Amino acid sequence: MPRLDDAALDLLFRSARSHNAWLDKPVSAAQLHELYELMKLGPTSSNGSPARLVFVHSAAAKARLVPLMAPGNQAKVQAAPVSVLIAYDKRFHERLPQLFPHNPDAAAPFAANPALAEATAFRNSSLQGAYLMLAARALGLDCGPMSGFDAAGVNREFFGGEVVVNFICCLGYGDAAGLFPRHPRLDFDTACQLL
Amino acid sequence: MPRLDDAALDLLFRSARSHNAWLDKPVSAAQLHELYELMKLGPTSSNGSPARLVFVHSAAAKARLVPLMAPGNQAKVQAAPVSVLIAYDKRFHERLPQLFPHNPDAAAPFAANPALAEATAFRNSSLQGAYLMLAARALGLDCGPMSGFDAAGVNREFFGGEVVVNFICCLGYGDAAGLFPRHPRLDFDTACQLL
Repeated sequence: MPRLDDAALDLLFRSARSHNAWLDKPVSAAQLHELYELMKLGPTSSNGSPARLVFVHSAAAKARLVPLMAPGNQAKVQAAPVSVLIAYDKRFHERLPQLFPHNPDAAAPFAANPALAEATAFRNSSLQGAYLMLAARALGLDCGPMSGFDAAGVNREFFGGEVVVNFICCLGYGDAAGLFPRHPRLDFDTACQLL
Repeated sequence: MPRLDDAALDLLFRSARSHNAWLDKPVSAAQLHELYELMKLGPTSSNGSPARLVFVHSAAAKARLVPLMAPGNQAKVQAAPVSVLIAYDKRFHERLPQLFPHNPDAAAPFAANPALAEATAFRNSSLQGAYLMLAARALGLDCGPMSGFDAAGVNREFFGGEVVVNFICCLGYGDAAGLFPRHPRLDFDTACQLL
């Protein structure tokens, strides 16, 4: 396959939208496993794979998350069949002997420099969050990413220690009735230079 | 289209690899414009679109970039038809009146809190870098992302002021002869919780 066709580019980019309202249609655990098996393949620095995911799927888990969302995001999480907490492990480098086995020294710069480790984990877990969203679209799901939540509260409730939340994304089947018109994007000459 | 077929998932994820060696086959300016028109559509917080891209395409621009790369990455940039500098604008919020016009107060929290603005720009430009890589694969190009370079030097040479580099990615047609075996990924139960 030399490139994707127009229908595939539409599904991933051109017709895809961030959704605010969700159809009452479930997402299965099998779909979430299929999603992870795709998104895990996207590239990360030294294959460090710092993202840690919590799929908030059950009613009991949703009840723990909803009150930690910003007021404008609570109804979205309540209605979405799944919300994924995309977090990162500040000590991701401790797994580099498994993930990057040909270089036994790969972990040392991160172990010696926690600020470098955290910036690397933040960057690469963000990349992985984007892989997750595009993989979800590729599998026919819609996404609703959100930054508005009580991060300290989410960390206390769902994580601990060296794993901290990055952003949160609803997954499911979007209700197009809840969409606003698409916002404008920057044109090429504003955002890019071709040298 | 309910979901992508297996050939499309292979192109984006399963068969795609980070490339180290590049075929002597050019990438046109038209391809880079097509790439931007796709990647710009991916979601960012408040549609802030903080990524700024420099496509290093000409021999003259490449000669400025190569010496700023880590020794192990210099030959990659020299051989690749294009290397993209993915940067972010710490003052991205100054464009929110254009990008998020229905909320005239959207920029205020970022203007009042430069650390929040920078973290938001870093997170969202990383997402946009991932959209760029998956859009490139969707268009039949290969990617080679890199974090090993003199960031301060790249900022001095190519940017200035409030725009700073995040990471760098070679684009072109990868030479499979330069690939190593794929590294292992974390399994679902190590990286994920399903609650």
